[in-house]
Amino acid sequence: MRMIDIITKKRDGESLNEEEIRWFVDAYSNGDVPDYQASAFAMAIYFKGMSQAEAAALTYAMAESGDQLDLSLIEGVKVDKHSTGGVGDKTTLILGPLVAALDIPVAKMSGRGLGHTGGTIDKLEAFEGFRTEIDEEEFIQLVNTNKMAVAGQSGNLTPADKKLYALRDVTATVNSIPLIASSVMSKKIASGADAIVLDVKTGSGAFMEEIEEARQLAEAMVDIGNSLDRKTMAVISNMDQPLGRFVGNALEVKEAIETLQGNGPDDLHELSITLASHMAVLGGKADNEAEGRELVEKTIKDKSALEKMKQFIKGQGGNAEAVDHSELLANANITSNVVSASSGYVSGMHAAEIGKAAMMLGAGRETKDDVIDHAVGIELTKKIGDYVEKGEPLAVMHANHEETENVAEMIRNAFAFSKEKIEKPTLIFDTIY
Amino acid sequence: MRMIDIITKKRDGESLNEEEIRWFVDAYSNGDVPDYQASAFAMAIYFKGMSQAEAAALTYAMAESGDQLDLSLIEGVKVDKHSTGGVGDKTTLILGPLVAALDIPVAKMSGRGLGHTGGTIDKLEAFEGFRTEIDEEEFIQLVNTNKMAVAGQSGNLTPADKKLYALRDVTATVNSIPLIASSVMSKKIASGADAIVLDVKTGSGAFMEEIEEARQLAEAMVDIGNSLDRKTMAVISNMDQPLGRFVGNALEVKEAIETLQGNGPDDLHELSITLASHMAVLGGKADNEAEGRELVEKTIKDKSALEKMKQFIKGQGGNAEAVDHSELLANANITSNVVSASSGYVSGMHAAEIGKAAMMLGAGRETKDDVIDHAVGIELTKKIGDYVEKGEPLAVMHANHEETENVAEMIRNAFAFSKEKIEKPTLIFDTIY
Repeated sequence: MRMIDIITKKRDGESLNEEEIRWFVDAYSNGDVPDYQASAFAMAIYFKGMSQAEAAALTYAMAESGDQLDLSLIEGVKVDKHSTGGVGDKTTLILGPLVAALDIPVAKMSGRGLGHTGGTIDKLEAFEGFRTEIDEEEFIQLVNTNKMAVAGQSGNLTPADKKLYALRDVTATVNSIPLIASSVMSKKIASGADAIVLDVKTGSGAFMEEIEEARQLAEAMVDIGNSLDRKTMAVISNMDQPLGRFVGNALEVKEAIETLQGNGPDDLHELSITLASHMAVLGGKADNEAEGRELVEKTIKDKSALEKMKQFIKGQGGNAEAVDHSELLANANITSNVVSASSGYVSGMHAAEIGKAAMMLGAGRETKDDVIDHAVGIELTKKIGDYVEKGEPLAVMHANHEETENVAEMIRNAFAFSKEKIEKPTLIFDTIY
Repeated sequence: MRMIDIITKKRDGESLNEEEIRWFVDAYSNGDVPDYQASAFAMAIYFKGMSQAEAAALTYAMAESGDQLDLSLIEGVKVDKHSTGGVGDKTTLILGPLVAALDIPVAKMSGRGLGHTGGTIDKLEAFEGFRTEIDEEEFIQLVNTNKMAVAGQSGNLTPADKKLYALRDVTATVNSIPLIASSVMSKKIASGADAIVLDVKTGSGAFMEEIEEARQLAEAMVDIGNSLDRKTMAVISNMDQPLGRFVGNALEVKEAIETLQGNGPDDLHELSITLASHMAVLGGKADNEAEGRELVEKTIKDKSALEKMKQFIKGQGGNAEAVDHSELLANANITSNVVSASSGYVSGMHAAEIGKAAMMLGAGRETKDDVIDHAVGIELTKKIGDYVEKGEPLAVMHANHEETENVAEMIRNAFAFSKEKIEKPTLIFDTIY
């Protein structure tokens, strides 16, 4: 096989077969296909797309390109959840205990990565003593005992995807639905998921700003999952403003705990319940979403999800007392208000700018070597639809240094106002099976 | 400037400005932009095209990327001719003497390259003693004295084009009209041409098989030339069968001499006269094509073009006696007929296959290190429209080895026949200013 023929076929809009795609992934991984051919190929895919069968073949070949987790020793259906990423998204911290309390095993491998805040394991490290470097044997044992474990990614998962993604990142070929979909799904499949619930976000804080694009991505991922025999479904949710009221690592953990206690903000509560209900269905504990919802709500009411959280934190060496006494989590030294320069209803928010502001306070990593400050972040006191008077606070900054005026300005500028009353935005746009 | 932004702009169909294109050419030439970004960019251009202004900027930047010939010491308008390449195309050998006889200076740099036969300088080396390694000073002096010189390419012309072309060749991005057009035109401009006549070929032996593509390429090149202040025009000519009757180096030289003597085959004669007439116009010797044609035909009739050929060959050390006595040129040891397996009118020919057959006999180079045999090649005894009886020869192979049965088979298979009478094909489809 020759790479030039594969590029030409794709460029001319023909379909590639499984063997050709597998050959590309293998040859690119081991260096037989150079970057300059892979990038031309990626650009051809950008313009010509991929069929469902092509995307599935790419996903599977990338999933098999490196180590794969074998979770067969864990009892039950392993249901994984993936979010395409947004600001203030702490649902994993909530969903885990919710479904683990229903005896659905949560075996989560999580990376650190770059972003507005740390990843799930960075957030969990806000618990003193919490260990994330866990070997496979202990990981499986923890899941079997506690129904939930979250470990830092070890091993070499989907190296072909890593290599291709790094190339796409510098060749303007990231924004291709089939390439994004196969990248996400290859990681889920290599991580050993039996079933997958996807939270595809759209709006000013999401990668997919337009709902139509989000829908296409959701459909592509659901198709790939199902054609590779992983039950897969997706929810399309609103990311026009941060989810919940807090952005920052320890701050998000606190909000997650409040949600497990039944006191979470409406949007975070509702999205968590929805995603958990679907996980209950895919995990075989409920026949439909309504049944799943009933089960999930019960785990909040009877505190079994909260207890599961404590058991999980303790199992990985963390101080589980902090679940009931969240003042034991990291706290920032300085809090200061960001006051509004206008009066009116909050009509919009540039969610990505809020995220960037949190990162500037130290909550996230801009480069791999940045160190995260777990304590810092932003609390939004106004969200879309709320009325605010000039001089009233829009947000509270939690900081560990005093030079925050530019961050405050950034937050202030992220808000838009209207004289007219504004409806609360729709949270969930669609559900895709 | 960042390459990713330039790729993104082109990918999204926006126009690049001159500064951005110049930056790309410079940065790619000196290695600051890696191949994998350049290939993604080329693929984006493949899909999104380039405006006339973009293509002109690319051409000019590539022309300036290396050495440029300074022909200002040569008197008169330097009119260059370029053919997009075909089988049996020996027009340069004819046009040179035709226009030089009109006092239009012919200062031709010619490469060797790969192909069915050698390039123009390989063909000229069929004259014993002919020198092609000539320094710039002598080259200019030769043109001023004889009005014609052909030298092997020296120096480092259009290195940016060479680098980009080599990359396009392995990334399925060759077949882009603006990229082909800028590649050709950058070389012409770096070679010091004041005006350019283009012979864009279309048909089974041409790079552009479809006439519409050929027309687009011709228009793109003419636009580029004119917007860079080089008077440029193009003829679109038929390459559904080899031009003339001979394919091979010494064989083509003989046919070129016959044409200068007024005894050339119709198609070769007519195309040469047409191109030379346009060169006479661009060179300021005639006001229109008809006037040019009159002048050019006179140089054949009064033998001044033939004399010019002798003067030119002698000027570069070649045995000019061979012009009158072509048996002094290289001759092959073995000639054998390729006989027809069918009766009927020749209705079509796969010209590229005829070219390949000539290469297999040793007339061309498949790789850079192949040595050309000047004597070998193919004589076509039948062309489109001719009637042939089964068993009658279609062609004669001129070879220096005996194992030619597979080549004969290839030539035979390149012919198609019809029971119905077939018209001689149109030679010149269009003229583009």
